Amino acid sequence: MPAKEKSLEDLFHETLKDIYMAEKRILTALPKMAKAVNSDELRQAFEKHVDETEGHLERLDKVFEIIGKPAKGKKCEAIEGLIAEGQEIMKDFKNSDALDAGVLSGAQAVEHYEISRYGTLITWANELGHSDAVPLLAQTLEEEKNTDATLTQIAESTVNQQAAA
Amino acid sequence: MPAKEKSLEDLFHETLKDIYMAEKRILTALPKMAKAVNSDELRQAFEKHVDETEGHLERLDKVFEIIGKPAKGKKCEAIEGLIAEGQEIMKDFKNSDALDAGVLSGAQAVEHYEISRYGTLITWANELGHSDAVPLLAQTLEEEKNTDATLTQIAESTVNQQAAA
Repeated sequence: MPAKEKSLEDLFHETLKDIYMAEKRILTALPKMAKAVNSDELRQAFEKHVDETEGHLERLDKVFEIIGKPAKGKKCEAIEGLIAEGQEIMKDFKNSDALDAGVLSGAQAVEHYEISRYGTLITWANELGHSDAVPLLAQTLEEEKNTDATLTQIAESTVNQQAAA
Repeated sequence: MPAKEKSLEDLFHETLKDIYMAEKRILTALPKMAKAVNSDELRQAFEKHVDETEGHLERLDKVFEIIGKPAKGKKCEAIEGLIAEGQEIMKDFKNSDALDAGVLSGAQAVEHYEISRYGTLITWANELGHSDAVPLLAQTLEEEKNTDATLTQIAESTVNQQAAA
């Protein structure tokens, strides 16, 4: 007997597991990034985002509850690649004035991954009638967008000027 | 003698090599994605983006010229992870009504990676005084944002409704 055909519900569930793992990996990576950088403003932005990320995981726990599945992640190759790239920059630019600019750019790539994923999940939650999940996902999406905007502001105002000095 | 400290110019160059490889990988992946999907509208969006991606590579060639370096890529772990994730969805949802929604979401994750990278490169090109590079990078950024917006529109209007039917 062939396996039951996969549905949008399955896709939603798979993508939820994917972003759950991504958030967990980010929670581990952010303190290392905060420790590595020289700019106090950038460090504080990373530290603030650690707290936010804990909130994102709690909201994802609730979304798993809404769809009646256990909260668990699965290997997310995209976030592994993004984090590996960030680690490479931290190593290669360790004693460089451009370190902060590099770490910041890696963080923005991660934010954009999350912005894309949460946007997708919101569209699907609407399609699937998981209306209780929508505001939870939307609140996190808003925080990811705000973090990205804060990082752009820091990049334009200080970090890059230091790096080019 | 210690190696010369790396500069923002080096970081710009490294990131240029990274996105150059990403664009090349995308150029290979897009026709496979176009072939896999069921929606004509989505297929046409992917096919249009193949042409645009060729233009992005030509613009990057010019940016390499501006900084006086040979146009070449380097391994980009982020794009490898993003493409691997997309391939996994194509395999797991091969005969599913949700296939298009999944492939589309993977394409949007790739677009967001590029949006982040081009945004970063523009900020750095400005800092470094590579003013001729800025409009080239900005034109590509605009096309990536438009592609992402088109994909969102297709997702909301047709693909997800098919998948949830």
